[in-house]
Amino acid sequence: MNRHEVYMKRAIELAKGGWGKTNPNPLVGAVIVKDGEIIAEGFHKELGGDHAEAAALINSRQSVEGGTLYVNLEPCSHHGRTPPCAVKIIESKIKRVVVAMEDPNPLVAGSGIRMLREAGIEVVMGVLEKEAGVLNEIFIKYISHKMPFVIMKAAMTLDGKIASVTGDSKWISGESSRQQVHIIRDRVSAVMVGVNTVLTDNPELTTRLGSGEGRDPVRIVVDSRGIIPADSKAVTIQSPACAVLATTSLIEKDKEKLFKSKGVKVLKLDGPNSGGHVDLKLLMQELYKLEIDSVLLEGGGNLNAAALKAGIVDKVMFFISPRIIGGQEAKTPVEGDGIRLMSNAVNLRDINIRRFGRDILVEGYVRGEACLQEL
Amino acid sequence: MNRHEVYMKRAIELAKGGWGKTNPNPLVGAVIVKDGEIIAEGFHKELGGDHAEAAALINSRQSVEGGTLYVNLEPCSHHGRTPPCAVKIIESKIKRVVVAMEDPNPLVAGSGIRMLREAGIEVVMGVLEKEAGVLNEIFIKYISHKMPFVIMKAAMTLDGKIASVTGDSKWISGESSRQQVHIIRDRVSAVMVGVNTVLTDNPELTTRLGSGEGRDPVRIVVDSRGIIPADSKAVTIQSPACAVLATTSLIEKDKEKLFKSKGVKVLKLDGPNSGGHVDLKLLMQELYKLEIDSVLLEGGGNLNAAALKAGIVDKVMFFISPRIIGGQEAKTPVEGDGIRLMSNAVNLRDINIRRFGRDILVEGYVRGEACLQEL
Repeated sequence: MNRHEVYMKRAIELAKGGWGKTNPNPLVGAVIVKDGEIIAEGFHKELGGDHAEAAALINSRQSVEGGTLYVNLEPCSHHGRTPPCAVKIIESKIKRVVVAMEDPNPLVAGSGIRMLREAGIEVVMGVLEKEAGVLNEIFIKYISHKMPFVIMKAAMTLDGKIASVTGDSKWISGESSRQQVHIIRDRVSAVMVGVNTVLTDNPELTTRLGSGEGRDPVRIVVDSRGIIPADSKAVTIQSPACAVLATTSLIEKDKEKLFKSKGVKVLKLDGPNSGGHVDLKLLMQELYKLEIDSVLLEGGGNLNAAALKAGIVDKVMFFISPRIIGGQEAKTPVEGDGIRLMSNAVNLRDINIRRFGRDILVEGYVRGEACLQEL
Repeated sequence: MNRHEVYMKRAIELAKGGWGKTNPNPLVGAVIVKDGEIIAEGFHKELGGDHAEAAALINSRQSVEGGTLYVNLEPCSHHGRTPPCAVKIIESKIKRVVVAMEDPNPLVAGSGIRMLREAGIEVVMGVLEKEAGVLNEIFIKYISHKMPFVIMKAAMTLDGKIASVTGDSKWISGESSRQQVHIIRDRVSAVMVGVNTVLTDNPELTTRLGSGEGRDPVRIVVDSRGIIPADSKAVTIQSPACAVLATTSLIEKDKEKLFKSKGVKVLKLDGPNSGGHVDLKLLMQELYKLEIDSVLLEGGGNLNAAALKAGIVDKVMFFISPRIIGGQEAKTPVEGDGIRLMSNAVNLRDINIRRFGRDILVEGYVRGEACLQEL
């Protein structure tokens, strides 16, 4: 790791301080180095707050003139929620800016870097670019595809069951895995389940961190006919985050009114080819408009299969409990009609394996949409 | 790692030279150290060949008098296929013997160590005992339970499917995983499948190592009614290893004759409570009599469930391909009736995770029989 990478790594670490608070903005950290020492640090703390570069400039107790600024995302050049950072950097007389990655936001797209270079500032690009991309995988998807980043999460036994034949699923994964799920809920904008999960488990879908902290995600229930009870916890639970019922025109008028009277946001998403089911791609486009940049999909086998088929899944997180439960009739994490040929299976890339207590977490990214046609 | 452990590790490495050739004997390696240097090494190369200690003594080009012998298993004290090693060691004037573990064989059971000590030799016990136990897990099970060590192997997608909805399973796992399965086939005495696997895939069940080397395991087909075609590869393939048909009295007389005429060993194993199915515990007891010390179970979901229920499974090896195939009707690695409560699931211990190419191998040991009652 060279000197640039050491400081960029620090900027990335700082950026993580904004996890769950900046959505749908990116995670950004900044470090100012002068005469071989870090003289100031900053990060984007929350939506509407100072950008990382501005925060670092403000935090500096000495002149930053002639210093080097490290930042994991291209400084902005447009007047958004705050004045453009590129201008602030130029005014500060910083000599050099080291950037991990270009801003995928079409409103920036290299113009911040151009602005800096035109002002005579040396710009070094691409330092820890891959790490910076992973850090902001949510933002990149959201801003470039105008849809939220979808993480499909499942908890299963080693023999691939998400519940026993009797439907018992408490608890497949251990304490440590379940805690990790709450950490993820705290970081994403929304959590999504299907009608069957609500009917079977009646989950709260809130964020429960041991510390009592944590931000609840928006709770989305996919229920094409609107049949979940109006007192389901997912829609009635006390929370600063709202509930969304993703349904179709098949929902009964009275039921729709009832949900709306409880403050539930009802989205009717009949797609041209969704055959009475919620058009999940349309749902994602609607969620984008609501500034929901990320969805943790905690579905059962049918919703998971539908989500993969619709091509909306970006990342997969399977928590595997090293136990065997068996059962021909036991539910599995992805069901539906299934892909007919093994060679057409949905390939995952960049596989990462972690342990949470006794459980094994397998994470990976969906390769693209082409392979999904057959599901 | 102290000095004793360093030499014991070497003895264990040497022992592995006998993998697949000593069954049903244990894997044993020996190192003789004198004046801080290894002066001789040996291992048990094959069934009927010199024991490791004897081999090391023979291999020494100088006097071993006053030296230390490291061996991963207690030296034998009984006249078996070769004269007792304890006697040979005493005669060699070795001063000290370091042993990893006592021999679980009731014919030895500490008497080898006693013999050495009575002759005035210093004996150090328990060095790398756990590693030595894993090395000889097959032998320990075989000799102390009078049943083979059973490894349940499955190849599945990340969503827990061993085939697509159409039955396509070629290939779930990658080249490297499949190669590893052949390495295991080379090391075990037998491989076992169920009737459905033979009907669907018609596998050869031979050992195919790239090198052209490798020893075929005995091929066991569990087929309660004896309905597999008499020309199935599993029973007709040219191999030095024989085929066993595990069946019941439900098999038709003519079919039984036909199999026998082809050299197939037909075992009729009606158990008191096996309800027309092969009594798998009885089968294991019969295999013990045939000196089959280990079985690689490459079954489908039903045979795997039955094997777990019968309490014959010792180890589980699941190769997980990081792909998703979906399908409510797709087969999973363990089916049957299933365990009703998650809290009664079969727990695996000593979980080990390895990568083979893109695949993830999860290995673990079955905790015991108590938890299996409900399956």
